[in-house]
Amino acid sequence: MFNDFKLTEGRPVYIQLKEYLKRMITNGHLLEHQKLPSTRELSTLLSISRNTVLTAYADLEQEGMIYAVKGKGNFVSHVETFKSPSIQLNWTEKINNQSFLAEEMDLMKHGVRWNKEMISFTSIAPDEKLFDVENFKRAFLNRMSIEGDIVLNYGYAKGYKPLIEYLLHYMEIKGVDIRNKDVLITNGFTEALDLLLSSLNKKNGRVICENPTHHSALKLFRLHGFEIDGIEMEDDGVNIRKLETSLSKKEYDFAYLIPSYHNPTGIVTSSEKRKEIMELFSAYQLPIVEDGFNEELRYSGSHLAPLAAFAGHGNHVIYISSFSKILFPGLRVGWILADKELIYYLESMKRARTIHTSTLDQAVLYQYLNDGYFEKYIKKAKSVYKKKYELAVHYCKQLIPFKRLTGDGGLHLFIELENNIDSRKLLEKCYQNGVVFSPGDVFYTDNSGKHTLRLGFSRLKESEIIQGITIIGDTIKNHYGG
Amino acid sequence: MFNDFKLTEGRPVYIQLKEYLKRMITNGHLLEHQKLPSTRELSTLLSISRNTVLTAYADLEQEGMIYAVKGKGNFVSHVETFKSPSIQLNWTEKINNQSFLAEEMDLMKHGVRWNKEMISFTSIAPDEKLFDVENFKRAFLNRMSIEGDIVLNYGYAKGYKPLIEYLLHYMEIKGVDIRNKDVLITNGFTEALDLLLSSLNKKNGRVICENPTHHSALKLFRLHGFEIDGIEMEDDGVNIRKLETSLSKKEYDFAYLIPSYHNPTGIVTSSEKRKEIMELFSAYQLPIVEDGFNEELRYSGSHLAPLAAFAGHGNHVIYISSFSKILFPGLRVGWILADKELIYYLESMKRARTIHTSTLDQAVLYQYLNDGYFEKYIKKAKSVYKKKYELAVHYCKQLIPFKRLTGDGGLHLFIELENNIDSRKLLEKCYQNGVVFSPGDVFYTDNSGKHTLRLGFSRLKESEIIQGITIIGDTIKNHYGG
Repeated sequence: MFNDFKLTEGRPVYIQLKEYLKRMITNGHLLEHQKLPSTRELSTLLSISRNTVLTAYADLEQEGMIYAVKGKGNFVSHVETFKSPSIQLNWTEKINNQSFLAEEMDLMKHGVRWNKEMISFTSIAPDEKLFDVENFKRAFLNRMSIEGDIVLNYGYAKGYKPLIEYLLHYMEIKGVDIRNKDVLITNGFTEALDLLLSSLNKKNGRVICENPTHHSALKLFRLHGFEIDGIEMEDDGVNIRKLETSLSKKEYDFAYLIPSYHNPTGIVTSSEKRKEIMELFSAYQLPIVEDGFNEELRYSGSHLAPLAAFAGHGNHVIYISSFSKILFPGLRVGWILADKELIYYLESMKRARTIHTSTLDQAVLYQYLNDGYFEKYIKKAKSVYKKKYELAVHYCKQLIPFKRLTGDGGLHLFIELENNIDSRKLLEKCYQNGVVFSPGDVFYTDNSGKHTLRLGFSRLKESEIIQGITIIGDTIKNHYGG
Repeated sequence: MFNDFKLTEGRPVYIQLKEYLKRMITNGHLLEHQKLPSTRELSTLLSISRNTVLTAYADLEQEGMIYAVKGKGNFVSHVETFKSPSIQLNWTEKINNQSFLAEEMDLMKHGVRWNKEMISFTSIAPDEKLFDVENFKRAFLNRMSIEGDIVLNYGYAKGYKPLIEYLLHYMEIKGVDIRNKDVLITNGFTEALDLLLSSLNKKNGRVICENPTHHSALKLFRLHGFEIDGIEMEDDGVNIRKLETSLSKKEYDFAYLIPSYHNPTGIVTSSEKRKEIMELFSAYQLPIVEDGFNEELRYSGSHLAPLAAFAGHGNHVIYISSFSKILFPGLRVGWILADKELIYYLESMKRARTIHTSTLDQAVLYQYLNDGYFEKYIKKAKSVYKKKYELAVHYCKQLIPFKRLTGDGGLHLFIELENNIDSRKLLEKCYQNGVVFSPGDVFYTDNSGKHTLRLGFSRLKESEIIQGITIIGDTIKNHYGG
């Protein structure tokens, strides 16, 4: 007895002893009224200090697990070990269709598997080697010293007030008319879109968006039972003529658009096209959900205002964004800027479903933004990613026989191969040569795009980018000619 | 011009200048090709260093907002200020019934309002004066130094692995058989319950629970369209006879129970009754959602195992809990311990809806737990809250003419007054005397409980507890006799 007690590092020994004894009591290895070894005996037996045993025994007594008899020692209390008849439910029978769909569309479960020795173009997450950990710590300590107790207690469903103020100001600088608008903080972009879809009437049950588009958005539209019409992408944004045709033929509840660094194509919608889009939607009085995805990453070129700015005093644009995608994705902070009345209802839905977003995440993010660390970080990040971007474009043009290559910056490129090349079959072959990428079909609204692929380069070294693209190019040439 | 530039403290000056100029450009106060003051002029005009102006101009040029002409100075670039025709949508018309219901049941919007001069018994949040901010900082810095880059980048939908392992071990020590079980980390208890309700078949569309019960759970059941049958509470837990009658008469999808410090009654379900409950649900093969609410706060008395432990190898108990309620509610971390198959589906639903819970919150919480700070904190918290609890019970018994008083510890008491006393009317009167509490009716499944109230004492000083209870007692006596 007691010979299977093993210490692990970094956790107080008295707690480990206490947990060990508790487990022996709850699983019946120590019986009711059984005498425990004296503190002296146990400390010798386990080679730990007697004080440690004393503390553990005192705690166990306080928790009702053992009792002391003066002059006699410590004994095990009555601890219920009754087990009800073992029930084995078949949970799969109890799962609903949405949940099956969520599982089916779960790219982490059914997506590309790869190991660390391979070159993976699947990620569009930021490169953690760029993370500004020191200033992040500074921001944390600053905020904690200002209001640690507020940061750690309950917050508001709408969000942490200083961050809301910051974001309103931030959007105003982008040219957005913030009168009659408000901000709701969410657990990233995904919760924001989910809350919106959960709160709006499904009058027509149909949404219009770019084709291809963001996979997480597609998944949520499907989970919420929407029909999805995707409009093809031209090199400067969605095809306006086709957009207009669809709008004139069918009724939609809203549009979902990603004007900057469109995911997956990397296309930036031109200023001219933004105007056309806005005029069109004004004419149809249709709400637009604008995804501000990585808009902050613009490497160069003229200033581009978000659609929310073109809307002026109008209230039909719902702008959803997050800094996490380029800054710290481990912090789950996104936001919705929209009409005040709409935010009022979304706030109650948010409270009903997750109470509020982590105040710690919000408060540290606020401090990091306010102290100007974000400005500095984004400059560094831009220069690093820009180099990788230019390198990737250069080598793709040289080595991959594509039909079309898009990506005006950002963290990824999108490639359309010849129609006869199935990118999933290509992936299998590249996999054998140690390279993986994202097959593009998962981004399409209509089961097309089988000849497309997305290359995320943000987390790769320059040498890996070159090597990976070379292997993809060679694999295509070897199997399909070129 | 430029005379409305005002500096705020704590934010780099060059960023403030940049934002100021950007705003003047995007709102059309500075026009295309307009010449900006020289850096020297502007630094004099605004009493800031010339370097600051240089940095701001350089950034604006990089962002495409201004352009420099050699030897001539800096000029405003073309920035699109087109606004589409102003659309005013009526968002209230687009809101669905669930969202209206969430708003209607939103206690923060329609609950008791009070100001800081008043004594408020409405909160059952922990007292922030007890917060162990220093050790929390230590845990943060420890974790960041171990794996800051992992903490800040994307995590897994299922949760942060060390925390999952910790929680499995933690539940095992409570006597739970963790074979074939798994843990999903969520944004607190509320998201956990919401994910579950979103993923299960609504076969019978009916849930059985204690009456009264947790308001957030009631709200979610209603939002998901469940019929709710509440079973009255006796002093040692739910009325077993009535529970059995209901189970024999109607078909339910699952039960929702709060065995420890039941919210709002504060009742702890006895060991004997836990056995009876488990036997009954085994017979009916019905899943139980067990809310582990504040189970860690047990001030004294014998050890009580969660229902999940009584289930043994069975898989019909879904245990949901969170440390946030007593530790740091600002960190949104809860968890579900349930059958592996069920967790597998819930994980995909979690990923679809919020990607994952803040890795920062999870990692710091893990470190705080693992380093043994939680054990120390809970001891301190227990001794403080226990004193407040005993004080509140003592004065309630002396001063409030109640029909029934419940609360075996925890952070709140529940009072049933004589049936002729409407606690909302009483609240209005107490409000005038500077005291507020939570009217109990919001916790009832069947619109009853109009003569009940909940007193949360966790955040009050001892003198406030005494004064508040005195005022409530006097108000009752003055208006209803006693």
